[in-house]
Amino acid sequence: MATVSRYVDISTVDKEAKKDYIDRHSPFVYCEGNAKKGEKFQVRVQMGKEYKHPDDFDHYISYIQLFDGETLLGQATYMAGAQGSAPANAEVIFTIVPTRKHLKLTAMSYCTKHGLWESDPVEVDVAE
Amino acid sequence: MATVSRYVDISTVDKEAKKDYIDRHSPFVYCEGNAKKGEKFQVRVQMGKEYKHPDDFDHYISYIQLFDGETLLGQATYMAGAQGSAPANAEVIFTIVPTRKHLKLTAMSYCTKHGLWESDPVEVDVAE
Amino acid sequence: MATVSRYVDISTVDKEAKKDYIDRHSPFVYCEGNAKKGEKFQVRVQMGKEYKHPDDFDHYISYIQLFDGETLLGQATYMAGAQGSAPANAEVIFTIVPTRKHLKLTAMSYCTKHGLWESDPVEVDVAE
Amino acid sequence: MATVSRYVDISTVDKEAKKDYIDRHSPFVYCEGNAKKGEKFQVRVQMGKEYKHPDDFDHYISYIQLFDGETLLGQATYMAGAQGSAPANAEVIFTIVPTRKHLKLTAMSYCTKHGLWESDPVEVDVAE
Repeated sequence: MATVSRYVDISTVDKEAKKDYIDRHSPFVYCEGNAKKGEKFQVRVQMGKEYKHPDDFDHYISYIQLFDGETLLGQATYMAGAQGSAPANAEVIFTIVPTRKHLKLTAMSYCTKHGLWESDPVEVDVAE
Repeated sequence: MATVSRYVDISTVDKEAKKDYIDRHSPFVYCEGNAKKGEKFQVRVQMGKEYKHPDDFDHYISYIQLFDGETLLGQATYMAGAQGSAPANAEVIFTIVPTRKHLKLTAMSYCTKHGLWESDPVEVDVAE
Repeated sequence: MATVSRYVDISTVDKEAKKDYIDRHSPFVYCEGNAKKGEKFQVRVQMGKEYKHPDDFDHYISYIQLFDGETLLGQATYMAGAQGSAPANAEVIFTIVPTRKHLKLTAMSYCTKHGLWESDPVEVDVAE
Repeated sequence: MATVSRYVDISTVDKEAKKDYIDRHSPFVYCEGNAKKGEKFQVRVQMGKEYKHPDDFDHYISYIQLFDGETLLGQATYMAGAQGSAPANAEVIFTIVPTRKHLKLTAMSYCTKHGLWESDPVEVDVAE
């Protein structure tokens, strides 16, 4: 079955190559901690924090998805070479419109060589 | 985190509503058991076997992906209403070109109300 | 602006390189001439008829869309290397459910080097 | 064939309904006028400037693409209901990495009822 890999705090990882591998494949979700119901709210998703991912023919980030719980809010799809064919931290900013009281945002991304990766969840309170 | 639900043999499930729920959300992979390296090979993915899925505004099948192990081979994306706004078994036939000795095909699909679902794997031997 | 290139009958084209260029970038729609309202109907889209398209890092078929008039029925998205990294005629079979009296099917595809290409339309009568 | 509609300056349009129709279906590209080669550059695409687009079952913005000339840089795909099921100006911010001397950015979007729409081009000079 298609494994979904998840981020592990790389400060707990010994080997440099493994830190690099985990970090560059992990999507990270960045946004304010509070949103307002029915109003636009920006959520930035970035691939990797300290390490960059290649943008090669057989090894590139093909898509980034943003979920609220089980609900997909949007998908950004990229072509090989979209990052200038150089190692990079791919990112996209989704503008969402919260309709529930609480958001539990996670990002899922797909690397063409190392499959699906999911971020830690980010919780957002939504005021009326 | 975004849960990936998986098919359970519905003959082992008691309640009719649960059989329906599981079956209509599960993608099934259909193909020959043998392929030839470098030659076109058709893989059909169908949503549900005995039950149909709604095609409503807040409840429809939004995409079907085909994986070989961890590798995404293709994604079919649909709009709300693509199944004629009536319950249906959405399906797509991907034509793939095997390059490895063995395929382990799984399908992943996304329902806008009940999230990600993954099929059982289907194994295919690839002759030179 | 993003140009949408269209198929030209290559028997009217002199130069071999141009025949190849046009044919391998053009999606072709294949299906029966008659469908039945509310019933599944298969539509095959194939890239190129007589010539194959490369599947290289900076030159591959990234997606194939199927339209009925102005309405998008589905999109198949591919990654670089999906055709085995060898020249091929990418294809996908969409199963659609007609709800109108008449279909006017066209396919639109995207090559990462040569942009958007659209097929000739294929007309289908839909019986009640 | 699938028509690609294009923005017309709505100050030249008489009827209010037509101003609304054109504006809410048109993607607009916003970014700085200068970028630097190999460095991240943010491009915001927003649907409509003065009017909002519905987010209904049979009438919603399904995707927004960003092109540089004929080259697709990224696609943001949405599900019905992604804008909170209320009229909205859908938007996405793509982070791109320019590799050429000049960018000619256009956005293409797809409304499930009124088809493909393309923005005016935005030119960006890219310094070494």
